[in-house]
Amino acid sequence: MTRTLIRNGLVITAADELAADVLVDGERVVALAASGSELAQGWTADTVLDATGKYVVPGGVDAHTHMEMPFGGTQSADTFETGTRAAAWGGTTTIVDFAIQSMGGSLREGLDAWHAKAEGNCAIDYAFHMIVADVNDSSLKEMEALIGEGVTSFKLFMAYPGVFYSDDGKILRALQKGAETGGLTMMHAENGIAIDVLIEQALAKGQTDPRYHGEVRHALLEAEATHRAIKLAQVAEAPIYIVHLSAAQALAQVQQARDEGFNAFAETCPQYLFLSTDDLARPGFEGAKYVCSTPLRPAEHQAALWRGLRTDDLSVVSTDHCPFCFKGQKDMGIGDFSKIPNGLPGVETRMDLLHQGVVEGRISRKRWIEIACATPAKMFGLYPRKGTIAPGADADIVLYDPAATQVHSAKTHHMAVDYSCYEGRETTGKVSTVLSRGRVVVDGGEYLGKAGDGAFQKRTTCQYLR
Amino acid sequence: MTRTLIRNGLVITAADELAADVLVDGERVVALAASGSELAQGWTADTVLDATGKYVVPGGVDAHTHMEMPFGGTQSADTFETGTRAAAWGGTTTIVDFAIQSMGGSLREGLDAWHAKAEGNCAIDYAFHMIVADVNDSSLKEMEALIGEGVTSFKLFMAYPGVFYSDDGKILRALQKGAETGGLTMMHAENGIAIDVLIEQALAKGQTDPRYHGEVRHALLEAEATHRAIKLAQVAEAPIYIVHLSAAQALAQVQQARDEGFNAFAETCPQYLFLSTDDLARPGFEGAKYVCSTPLRPAEHQAALWRGLRTDDLSVVSTDHCPFCFKGQKDMGIGDFSKIPNGLPGVETRMDLLHQGVVEGRISRKRWIEIACATPAKMFGLYPRKGTIAPGADADIVLYDPAATQVHSAKTHHMAVDYSCYEGRETTGKVSTVLSRGRVVVDGGEYLGKAGDGAFQKRTTCQYLR
Amino acid sequence: MTRTLIRNGLVITAADELAADVLVDGERVVALAASGSELAQGWTADTVLDATGKYVVPGGVDAHTHMEMPFGGTQSADTFETGTRAAAWGGTTTIVDFAIQSMGGSLREGLDAWHAKAEGNCAIDYAFHMIVADVNDSSLKEMEALIGEGVTSFKLFMAYPGVFYSDDGKILRALQKGAETGGLTMMHAENGIAIDVLIEQALAKGQTDPRYHGEVRHALLEAEATHRAIKLAQVAEAPIYIVHLSAAQALAQVQQARDEGFNAFAETCPQYLFLSTDDLARPGFEGAKYVCSTPLRPAEHQAALWRGLRTDDLSVVSTDHCPFCFKGQKDMGIGDFSKIPNGLPGVETRMDLLHQGVVEGRISRKRWIEIACATPAKMFGLYPRKGTIAPGADADIVLYDPAATQVHSAKTHHMAVDYSCYEGRETTGKVSTVLSRGRVVVDGGEYLGKAGDGAFQKRTTCQYLR
Amino acid sequence: MTRTLIRNGLVITAADELAADVLVDGERVVALAASGSELAQGWTADTVLDATGKYVVPGGVDAHTHMEMPFGGTQSADTFETGTRAAAWGGTTTIVDFAIQSMGGSLREGLDAWHAKAEGNCAIDYAFHMIVADVNDSSLKEMEALIGEGVTSFKLFMAYPGVFYSDDGKILRALQKGAETGGLTMMHAENGIAIDVLIEQALAKGQTDPRYHGEVRHALLEAEATHRAIKLAQVAEAPIYIVHLSAAQALAQVQQARDEGFNAFAETCPQYLFLSTDDLARPGFEGAKYVCSTPLRPAEHQAALWRGLRTDDLSVVSTDHCPFCFKGQKDMGIGDFSKIPNGLPGVETRMDLLHQGVVEGRISRKRWIEIACATPAKMFGLYPRKGTIAPGADADIVLYDPAATQVHSAKTHHMAVDYSCYEGRETTGKVSTVLSRGRVVVDGGEYLGKAGDGAFQKRTTCQYLR
Repeated sequence: MTRTLIRNGLVITAADELAADVLVDGERVVALAASGSELAQGWTADTVLDATGKYVVPGGVDAHTHMEMPFGGTQSADTFETGTRAAAWGGTTTIVDFAIQSMGGSLREGLDAWHAKAEGNCAIDYAFHMIVADVNDSSLKEMEALIGEGVTSFKLFMAYPGVFYSDDGKILRALQKGAETGGLTMMHAENGIAIDVLIEQALAKGQTDPRYHGEVRHALLEAEATHRAIKLAQVAEAPIYIVHLSAAQALAQVQQARDEGFNAFAETCPQYLFLSTDDLARPGFEGAKYVCSTPLRPAEHQAALWRGLRTDDLSVVSTDHCPFCFKGQKDMGIGDFSKIPNGLPGVETRMDLLHQGVVEGRISRKRWIEIACATPAKMFGLYPRKGTIAPGADADIVLYDPAATQVHSAKTHHMAVDYSCYEGRETTGKVSTVLSRGRVVVDGGEYLGKAGDGAFQKRTTCQYLR
Repeated sequence: MTRTLIRNGLVITAADELAADVLVDGERVVALAASGSELAQGWTADTVLDATGKYVVPGGVDAHTHMEMPFGGTQSADTFETGTRAAAWGGTTTIVDFAIQSMGGSLREGLDAWHAKAEGNCAIDYAFHMIVADVNDSSLKEMEALIGEGVTSFKLFMAYPGVFYSDDGKILRALQKGAETGGLTMMHAENGIAIDVLIEQALAKGQTDPRYHGEVRHALLEAEATHRAIKLAQVAEAPIYIVHLSAAQALAQVQQARDEGFNAFAETCPQYLFLSTDDLARPGFEGAKYVCSTPLRPAEHQAALWRGLRTDDLSVVSTDHCPFCFKGQKDMGIGDFSKIPNGLPGVETRMDLLHQGVVEGRISRKRWIEIACATPAKMFGLYPRKGTIAPGADADIVLYDPAATQVHSAKTHHMAVDYSCYEGRETTGKVSTVLSRGRVVVDGGEYLGKAGDGAFQKRTTCQYLR
Repeated sequence: MTRTLIRNGLVITAADELAADVLVDGERVVALAASGSELAQGWTADTVLDATGKYVVPGGVDAHTHMEMPFGGTQSADTFETGTRAAAWGGTTTIVDFAIQSMGGSLREGLDAWHAKAEGNCAIDYAFHMIVADVNDSSLKEMEALIGEGVTSFKLFMAYPGVFYSDDGKILRALQKGAETGGLTMMHAENGIAIDVLIEQALAKGQTDPRYHGEVRHALLEAEATHRAIKLAQVAEAPIYIVHLSAAQALAQVQQARDEGFNAFAETCPQYLFLSTDDLARPGFEGAKYVCSTPLRPAEHQAALWRGLRTDDLSVVSTDHCPFCFKGQKDMGIGDFSKIPNGLPGVETRMDLLHQGVVEGRISRKRWIEIACATPAKMFGLYPRKGTIAPGADADIVLYDPAATQVHSAKTHHMAVDYSCYEGRETTGKVSTVLSRGRVVVDGGEYLGKAGDGAFQKRTTCQYLR
Repeated sequence: MTRTLIRNGLVITAADELAADVLVDGERVVALAASGSELAQGWTADTVLDATGKYVVPGGVDAHTHMEMPFGGTQSADTFETGTRAAAWGGTTTIVDFAIQSMGGSLREGLDAWHAKAEGNCAIDYAFHMIVADVNDSSLKEMEALIGEGVTSFKLFMAYPGVFYSDDGKILRALQKGAETGGLTMMHAENGIAIDVLIEQALAKGQTDPRYHGEVRHALLEAEATHRAIKLAQVAEAPIYIVHLSAAQALAQVQQARDEGFNAFAETCPQYLFLSTDDLARPGFEGAKYVCSTPLRPAEHQAALWRGLRTDDLSVVSTDHCPFCFKGQKDMGIGDFSKIPNGLPGVETRMDLLHQGVVEGRISRKRWIEIACATPAKMFGLYPRKGTIAPGADADIVLYDPAATQVHSAKTHHMAVDYSCYEGRETTGKVSTVLSRGRVVVDGGEYLGKAGDGAFQKRTTCQYLR
């Protein structure tokens, strides 16, 4: 086995900031020692990386991606190969993607299909959540088996009737199964039944532009569904995790439940922290680039979300990475916003955008690592293998230059999509080097890995309960 | 026209307590004058009622009754004739009953059917709300017509899937119609989809006794539906009225919306103020007498409801009168609580039970009249014709003896049902004399009216908006 | 005794809107009858006032005035004679002014002094609250005696250290006395100890303009004191009434206590509904016209206050009328905002400004009368003698023309002060005729009364407890 | 320098649970390596401690102690020597004690006096907060100097008028100084002015027993002061730390401020988690053993406090260790509860009692270390030197046997006080070995250290701001 030594960096975890050298033996961190100590000085390795002036942080854990996801006759633009490679470029070393049960199909079939897509293609490690589109006695029973295989979280939808939608009875039954097995229920919390009425009414009034996507998906209907999901979870005595929360009013629901000590959790995404309905309303059809669900909100919601990250009412920042090209995909919705594929690219830019939050004084460095690495790993049963730098942990490590600047652009990013949501925006901080299970996969502006480096990760059940 | 003079009583309205004589000319109050004044002394009348030592209060307005309502092959035990006569005995001079649209039928057919049941049979005045079981383009359009006919409030159900249940899209559309027309949406707020799962699970576990009716209809599922109804109303920018609220957590939802200045209203019923799950758990099958929906709650909810009446977060007390005989009706549910007809008798006892609240110091006399007479009349467009004693108002007047006591019993009550929820309970205060539109219909322990005295009342839209 | 008959108006009380004729016999309302009824047609009177097209409303009750109040070597510009006459012009027929205990003096001496100022000079009826500047065993004992004399409310200050300030121990003891006797404690709720530090710091920084008056009297310090007053009241199990509430955050405190069913009450004043820190910041020294305490707040607080009036978390609108002339009085504070006499004129304009709220759709007509007449009368033990139009009530009645417009100006107002806070502002609605205890004192643009018409009113204890 | 190696334990920090060996070189941790790894196997040391089956946790940081504190003619029973030795026995390796400014004296004099008491006497490391009894221009200025000397937190009192009490103006000024310098203001939040009135009244009624101590120090008066402290801090834009929070209502205030993202922090103490007013009401004079301020609360508050620890609305558990012997000290208050010295012993039992919370499932192991070690170290500027186990940190390490049981008793404890609050209570978990800066000071049931081992610790400003 080869040994790698990272010297003289500032090791930042969710808990600590340490002047420490990190010794990697094979795929794992074997030891940390105080930089400059006699002991550390005595260490030797095959590869020595000088991290002077840099942060040494755990590789990012992106708990919400959709690679090559089928959607209305097309599929999301990144394959597991392109998407995970882009993730690596951005300092993310683990993704948790969503395998999908087809209506009428089994969880098994869905999971097998996703294993087939990913296996041998990934640049970094990956795991799966399971989207349960069809809650019934059989799929409920399958949930137990999947937990045994390391797929321990199950996503339901309160939106998209006829596609992914589960009614409240199905949701309750799935939550009860979660309480029984330890599986964590993830919820897309929007009242899709009501939204579909508003969509129909908007289109009937000729309101077809992308910005109406934001109007019909009313913030109060996200708040409503969030409250409902929590109450159903309380009846089932099960924990719940709200995905891609974007509305201040929905956050208030999570906050109230958490104040009562209930195990309700929520993630938000960088797009909700940095973009707004102003982007959705861009002239021409350009707003379509910013169509995702839950939708972008008016800019005043951003402050509430940043505050939620500080107060830990938002515990995780994921990307909901689900890119569609502007040409050839997004344009399916010209003349009818409801036909615009829902989703944005983001897997590559998450760590940098959150670091920008550090630069702007919105969160601390340790909180940056907590929301981007440690908590998602704990939430989804990957800790401490992933999400921290500690003896015994996987050597998923990023050397991060806090002073470098970069300008975001589709011309330079590595995601297989023809636009950037942040085109021309400058941020401070940049990935220098990325180790994935001990291998250097990005360094000196070069990608050094290959498809198949990444391995499927079995997950335990949620480790973050209070 | 005959003149009636009520002398020397204490006239109590929602606003005032006055030592005043009340002069009735024909069907209406024509004047009030200070008792003992030269002017009052000069008044003459065909009938003079001496109210010395008594309260002179507006006749009660019970905004929630179900006379001869079909339910699972049977119907509620009181006809319009027996039920309205019992109401008169209890000091209530107006009821608002619920006409029901059949699935697939029109509102018109439903309303006509209820007009046919009531016409010529009622002891006191009556009006109708409309239950909209089938929200569609046609029934939405009919709502406008009905408002023109004085049926200005429309009840929807979030419970009872397959019977009355409307999904959130239908609810939203009905609320939008309310916003457009001024019609008030009334909501049975329980998450019936989730409750049906819990019912099925309980029965599967052999939990068939009446008390499980209370357990499966979880307080959190009332709170959830209440929140959802309010949020949908906010999206529609329409007022909303929650019927038969019983859970403290649901009250909290109403309170929060009202704190924000939103037009959310709620009623509770005497059974939630005086009865509890202890009654539902009575041995043998006796708990079935107490099966209604929303269900009775643990006794600690009562204090919250009384407080809500004081803070005006609960604005109205109605009865949800819907009696079924213990023998021959309630017993349909032996061995399966879900088959017990849902409903309790109450139209006769409401004014007395609320006066007991006055006696016990829970509410003031004026608040008694406000929640039982004035606010329901304002809420449902009957004010000031009903609900107060003032020049021009209908002479629906009760002389009430605050010192008399009575013991409640099925042996002595006038409702056509074989049990009393309050059997053997003594309360203080009793109706002496009742005038309905100027006619004395109850006096000296005798019923002096006849079927057909009561007339249909056209209602305007809600007068209670803030 | 002379009889006066008011025909064909729309009688508006807190509870009702009635087409009724009002018969006044001597000083009191003797009867109301339906307009156009045979009975009403038969009524005769010495004076008949035609109210066609007009509102017939109770005379206003202004529960917070300071006539000829000593302040820093000067005194407020209106005497009881000029101030009560201006009140009558504005449709207010009762004021409750504040008698003041001197430090070291007795309540008795203070009350006697105020009786001497008022007696024989008032145009309308008046009553007194008592400012307790010096809480001690003796003054606590005197409170009982004053209640017997009809002075049933006692004001304390959490501001103005060294002048009116009471510490929390004194406040607690006064509240306990209130719990024991039924006396209502009124509170000036600002943390004066902290504010004085901020004043000293502002002046030290050369911040001497009137606008700094608003900055040092921080909204959070009003919220703090409001919360503290409520908590002390809860410990004492006594009701509490917060005077001149101006900050949204303070309102939130009252709302929370009321939600819990606690007897916390609050008034606001027209200046907080219609003026803002923009006025305090007017150029030159003109901002001094708008210096009062609690101070005007940024304009966004206005919406919260109007909402509080709708939700009844604000129960009363009083004026805190305490005028000082711009020339000769306000200018004492040139170069030092802390020396500007605190107070605004307002006793004449309250009814009109609140009616403007009706015109603008912020409150209903009945709510206008409730907050301006009925609730202050109930709160301070004057009901139903004052605050309503009903048999037996004092004939304090205003005929109000809802369609007339007026432009506010110091040139035309009747208050003895050289400026108007609303100079040049047009409002809709105007007093036509005013009766005070049966006498017409204002009519046809003429003042027909005289000094000494008004009589001292003994008050009972608070009638508004929940 | 000597090397110590701790093998095969489960290293638990606030963030991680690791199977790691810990290598100590001299006073510091130099490295951690995966247990069983080749690297770790190769390590050698002068002393090797086998931690198989044990937890290896950071030494406790008790941020609130009062050793040999003068109180009413006596002083707290533990000297720095006895108290810190007891702390070591209990697994606490750092205390932050309170130096006291005398009224009229300087901070300098107070701090010097406390340095003199502690220096050369302590078994473990120690630091100081400064009690500012006399806020004035001079003491405010001194605060800056003290921060330079590593005394970075300043305690004020809203209770104890005439002794430690500061009025709101002084508090505001101290908070402003905190905002300016980074000094953290700690607050004893009880409304002492109001409490003193209640004490006087209780004694006048002959209520002299210890249990009245709990009644007069009303929970609402803790909530009030907590709210006030927070509002003053918000005006000053300064963080605030509430000491020894005991009432659920006070916690609610902290929670609300934290929900808004404000830097309000609070600690509670083991006595509030495990004891109640039932103890205060013990027969005879035994309740005096449980007299401390804030007082013990009714048992139902305990659940709220445990929930607050889970939700992080309570961030720290300190002891407020301030023991007085039952005989000779507590008995000063026989016949007058207000003369009972306020304080309890606790420095030795904190880690064990909190571990009992782990055993009972109330908190996780990582949260145990967070509230007892890591957060107090961060809050008071000692991190990462204290509060964690990481390369570079001080080797303050406890080997903790999670399975051992112990029975608490004054006969066996090491605090210099004649009673235990937990006499006879059995808990699970026990300290095996304690290292203080690399030296083994407790092992095998023996104390191996000596007075003077402990050194004064300069602290930076608060590291826990959000």
